[in-house]
Amino acid sequence: MKQVTIKAPGGLDNLVVSDVAEPAAPGAGEITVRLHASSLNYHDYRVCAIEGALPDGRIPMADGAGVVAAVGAGVEEFAVGDAVVSGFFPDWLDGDDRPSDFSTTPGDGRDGYARERVTLPATWVTHAPEGWSHEEASTITTAGLTAWRALVVDAGIKAGDTVAVLGTGGVSIYALQLAKAMGATVIATSSSDAKLERLRDLGADHVINYRSTPEWGEEMRRITDGRGVDIVVEVGGPATLAQSIVAGRPGAHIALIGVLTGRSGEIPTALLMARQQRLQGLIVGSRRQQIDFVRALETLELRPVIDRRFALADLAEAFRYQESGAHFGKICVTM
Amino acid sequence: MKQVTIKAPGGLDNLVVSDVAEPAAPGAGEITVRLHASSLNYHDYRVCAIEGALPDGRIPMADGAGVVAAVGAGVEEFAVGDAVVSGFFPDWLDGDDRPSDFSTTPGDGRDGYARERVTLPATWVTHAPEGWSHEEASTITTAGLTAWRALVVDAGIKAGDTVAVLGTGGVSIYALQLAKAMGATVIATSSSDAKLERLRDLGADHVINYRSTPEWGEEMRRITDGRGVDIVVEVGGPATLAQSIVAGRPGAHIALIGVLTGRSGEIPTALLMARQQRLQGLIVGSRRQQIDFVRALETLELRPVIDRRFALADLAEAFRYQESGAHFGKICVTM
Amino acid sequence: MKQVTIKAPGGLDNLVVSDVAEPAAPGAGEITVRLHASSLNYHDYRVCAIEGALPDGRIPMADGAGVVAAVGAGVEEFAVGDAVVSGFFPDWLDGDDRPSDFSTTPGDGRDGYARERVTLPATWVTHAPEGWSHEEASTITTAGLTAWRALVVDAGIKAGDTVAVLGTGGVSIYALQLAKAMGATVIATSSSDAKLERLRDLGADHVINYRSTPEWGEEMRRITDGRGVDIVVEVGGPATLAQSIVAGRPGAHIALIGVLTGRSGEIPTALLMARQQRLQGLIVGSRRQQIDFVRALETLELRPVIDRRFALADLAEAFRYQESGAHFGKICVTM
Amino acid sequence: MKQVTIKAPGGLDNLVVSDVAEPAAPGAGEITVRLHASSLNYHDYRVCAIEGALPDGRIPMADGAGVVAAVGAGVEEFAVGDAVVSGFFPDWLDGDDRPSDFSTTPGDGRDGYARERVTLPATWVTHAPEGWSHEEASTITTAGLTAWRALVVDAGIKAGDTVAVLGTGGVSIYALQLAKAMGATVIATSSSDAKLERLRDLGADHVINYRSTPEWGEEMRRITDGRGVDIVVEVGGPATLAQSIVAGRPGAHIALIGVLTGRSGEIPTALLMARQQRLQGLIVGSRRQQIDFVRALETLELRPVIDRRFALADLAEAFRYQESGAHFGKICVTM
Repeated sequence: MKQVTIKAPGGLDNLVVSDVAEPAAPGAGEITVRLHASSLNYHDYRVCAIEGALPDGRIPMADGAGVVAAVGAGVEEFAVGDAVVSGFFPDWLDGDDRPSDFSTTPGDGRDGYARERVTLPATWVTHAPEGWSHEEASTITTAGLTAWRALVVDAGIKAGDTVAVLGTGGVSIYALQLAKAMGATVIATSSSDAKLERLRDLGADHVINYRSTPEWGEEMRRITDGRGVDIVVEVGGPATLAQSIVAGRPGAHIALIGVLTGRSGEIPTALLMARQQRLQGLIVGSRRQQIDFVRALETLELRPVIDRRFALADLAEAFRYQESGAHFGKICVTM
Repeated sequence: MKQVTIKAPGGLDNLVVSDVAEPAAPGAGEITVRLHASSLNYHDYRVCAIEGALPDGRIPMADGAGVVAAVGAGVEEFAVGDAVVSGFFPDWLDGDDRPSDFSTTPGDGRDGYARERVTLPATWVTHAPEGWSHEEASTITTAGLTAWRALVVDAGIKAGDTVAVLGTGGVSIYALQLAKAMGATVIATSSSDAKLERLRDLGADHVINYRSTPEWGEEMRRITDGRGVDIVVEVGGPATLAQSIVAGRPGAHIALIGVLTGRSGEIPTALLMARQQRLQGLIVGSRRQQIDFVRALETLELRPVIDRRFALADLAEAFRYQESGAHFGKICVTM
Repeated sequence: MKQVTIKAPGGLDNLVVSDVAEPAAPGAGEITVRLHASSLNYHDYRVCAIEGALPDGRIPMADGAGVVAAVGAGVEEFAVGDAVVSGFFPDWLDGDDRPSDFSTTPGDGRDGYARERVTLPATWVTHAPEGWSHEEASTITTAGLTAWRALVVDAGIKAGDTVAVLGTGGVSIYALQLAKAMGATVIATSSSDAKLERLRDLGADHVINYRSTPEWGEEMRRITDGRGVDIVVEVGGPATLAQSIVAGRPGAHIALIGVLTGRSGEIPTALLMARQQRLQGLIVGSRRQQIDFVRALETLELRPVIDRRFALADLAEAFRYQESGAHFGKICVTM
Repeated sequence: MKQVTIKAPGGLDNLVVSDVAEPAAPGAGEITVRLHASSLNYHDYRVCAIEGALPDGRIPMADGAGVVAAVGAGVEEFAVGDAVVSGFFPDWLDGDDRPSDFSTTPGDGRDGYARERVTLPATWVTHAPEGWSHEEASTITTAGLTAWRALVVDAGIKAGDTVAVLGTGGVSIYALQLAKAMGATVIATSSSDAKLERLRDLGADHVINYRSTPEWGEEMRRITDGRGVDIVVEVGGPATLAQSIVAGRPGAHIALIGVLTGRSGEIPTALLMARQQRLQGLIVGSRRQQIDFVRALETLELRPVIDRRFALADLAEAFRYQESGAHFGKICVTM
């Protein structure tokens, strides 16, 4: 079977396709999955693009979706033929004991899903939503679950809330769709008027071009009649956080997800304090949250936006396309 | 102007229409409202139908919707012409300090809205959702806010949850509509197949005739593949609660609203304990919750189901129609 | 080594002591524990006393405390010599996915700890609080964790709250001690003035003899100047629940734990609703909650009240003593 | 009677003592309070010391404690002779609709309590804890309630938690005392070994001199065996926040209170995200929270630490002493 690994010292030029033996048959508590798709996230890009971020020989990609091909002894949750999707923190099953690094994350601290088959503990995956394509399902692992946890688990979104989403990455589009499906009003931003048009088509109630309106925080206050937004899905990081704080109402929930604009920066802490807002750092979520999310996706009508598909062998090219920023929604590789 | 009062000792035969002077102009912090509609709830029926429940001369009806006709000094929240709807607990503005009786409730401990005009503190009403008829708006006060609080405030409903609603009263239909609008799966019950059909039309995913399926709790477990429902909007009271406990998953939230079947009864507390469920008593909600709810209603597409309208003067007849149980959704009187 | 098993058809006369081989050495992920103590709970009593409740040959007792005697491969949490205490739901590690029966509980659905040694998965126990005797530690499994979860996890107790505890069983005394240690006011009940005196010595601010004051709910309202108590640790069940509802303030949290007075009964649901109270069924808690609780016990000064110790071989006698109701606090067996 | 006002353009040299007429008798819903003490907070200092922060003639001081001297019509909560303490946000009675500025705060947007008598709405004060001196009670308004809200309302502190408190200001010392009284472990910092000694005397389990240990975040991790602290009461602001994030466990709650070190600064947002921590901005709290807090204080043994008392006429001198940083605990003025 085919797989992609990173060759030391890393970087996109060192993603190598090779033919390897199929994985062993599943032991007790394990399953074998025939993988069909993975989707690209900023985290995957970063560890592949930065030299030294991954050890020699690591298989990249946190997201993986496919079909159960074999089931080991004692596994009752899955049967051969079931569509499944991988989890970002395979060891974080339930509860609040959250990881604080990527040492257990496939495609980072562990081998990921840039391969055609894998044998793994059954708890490392969940069922995929019925009727979803593998490409669609693969976007659940990272982008989808992050948006779900930010809005539903952490912020406790309710109908009538106003949610701000920033840009057109996978988390933001998922957040837009989820927020609309649960009765919220959504304000979305982008630097491209063409992308803003697409955000509107996906249901955004208000859109702002943050290039022509750099004080978009104030603009969001204006749109909400001075009230401020209830929830910000803050994927930008330090360069956007100040505007997010400006945008938020007193007591707003700001889901801090992003490092797109850096790992630290000048933050107006006094305004965060005066507005009595909550800045909640988060990385993806637990297996239990993914199970809840998949159940929700089977009820809701929404489907993730897939921008473009690449073959597994073209993973480096897919990352370069991601790097260009031209995409809208998720980029996938298929096996 | 016209108003309806109850004449001692009470009972539906003692609802009296009379002509009285218009209310005084609004003082500081007050507004005058031209009332256009009220809707009937079980609570209104009960206090009007039971002799001695209301003092002589009390104006019944907790629900009231209309238009602001005059604004007193210092009122900034409302302007003449605004559509407004009354609150069930006028003094419960915000927070968790909930009342435990009806001494402050219009139409019970205080005069209610079976009249054409009223002057009252501005905080006794909130804005009505834009574009709603007065009949529709009047259903928010009691039935609507109860459903909202049960599902959103107390149970923290999320997409993918399964919600059980019992019967076709105002709270249950609102709960069905809200749950569907927020991405939940709904199982509804009725003793009438015709009404079950209408519940399906309103979005119920599953319906159960509780007459032909008296063990409907087990049936709900079967429908959920043995998992049990996440939330029960329990409007029946002691006679239905045992089945609601059977229907609920471990950890289920049961919103205890109803006294339809009595004020006390045999409850399987050991099963409630073994299932580790939460039984949450509630009566309507606070002004703050109503404001949140109205904002949600302006985002969601749903409209309350109005069964039939009566003239204010025919209030007794309206209650008798309610008593018959033939209705589906809300009965209103208009002024 | 010695162990106690139940002989069909069960009942206290059928508790049999036998000599058996020591357990196998621990496999991967397992440890061997030299057990030193177990404590008796109503649940243990019930399944031992009722014919047919346990299968032939079952080892009773959910509570077990002792010292790690051997550690299997891959176990990092424990070392030989560590003092440990068993968990009531060994498979409920974390999160909110609570069991709804006793099929996984040692001494009920599985073999328990009425033996001198056991080899088990390391996750079936937690560390014991430093400096505690094994008898003391053994009371954590059931009584202690139940009180902790009721007050801290479910009710979110805060300093200044008023807590009602009923009777002098293990859960109630733990709840009294925990509530006092966290700054609450405690009202305790008993039918024995001598026991009330001991409750006072343990810190109870107010005591009520429920025999001489059968309307103790009203008495609790009087003590709280009409406000009502914030939390009731309701261990009695249907026969006491009505008074607990009377005692509670609007919005009170009633932790429903007990089946002492039966498995169902007449409950004033209308008053629960009018008071807008929350009745939360619970059974013990998760491993994560036990870890938190043990950490708390190492900070707090409190120690559980041990009434009397029996030898393992005298387990039936210990249960008969428990049956008599003469005890105050926990009864233990030691190995 | 005597009062202190600020003279334009402000600054400590422009605090003026004058003799004025006594306030009017209380109208409906009002009371007159004979003030006996106020305590100094950083907020009071800042608005008095910075030119232009207060309008000409403003009476400073948010904290005020005294005795009810007269009661207006309709006031039932208070009687003549009751000891009372003022609220920081007089209009924030209950619920979550938090202010985001100081426009309603006595001593800032409104006249404060640097005077001997005041007539005000009864809801602007609460009862003081029984048996407290007026100086002690006056510290509740700002410092006390801030610590209570941070630990109890927002962070949901439980026994066994580890709490980090920074420095020896009023909020930090209150937080230390409250955390100890509710069963937490406390790590405290100061730049003075003498003050660290006093923090130990007040119950701090661990102390760190942040001057000699500038990487005190890592030191807190070491003290907690690598686990990290559960709650940080972050009063420093941007210059200490980075270390607070380092100190916190995954999922830690950081109560963001302080602007002592500036209004914005370089924050390691990526670490906050990776640790999945919550940064909760807050300013003091609501009247309902103050009522809960006062009830807690009557149960707990703790008393606030009063460093030094000044006469009202020496308010400027008191602020200069505060400015010096020599104090430990609260500085009060008495009337």
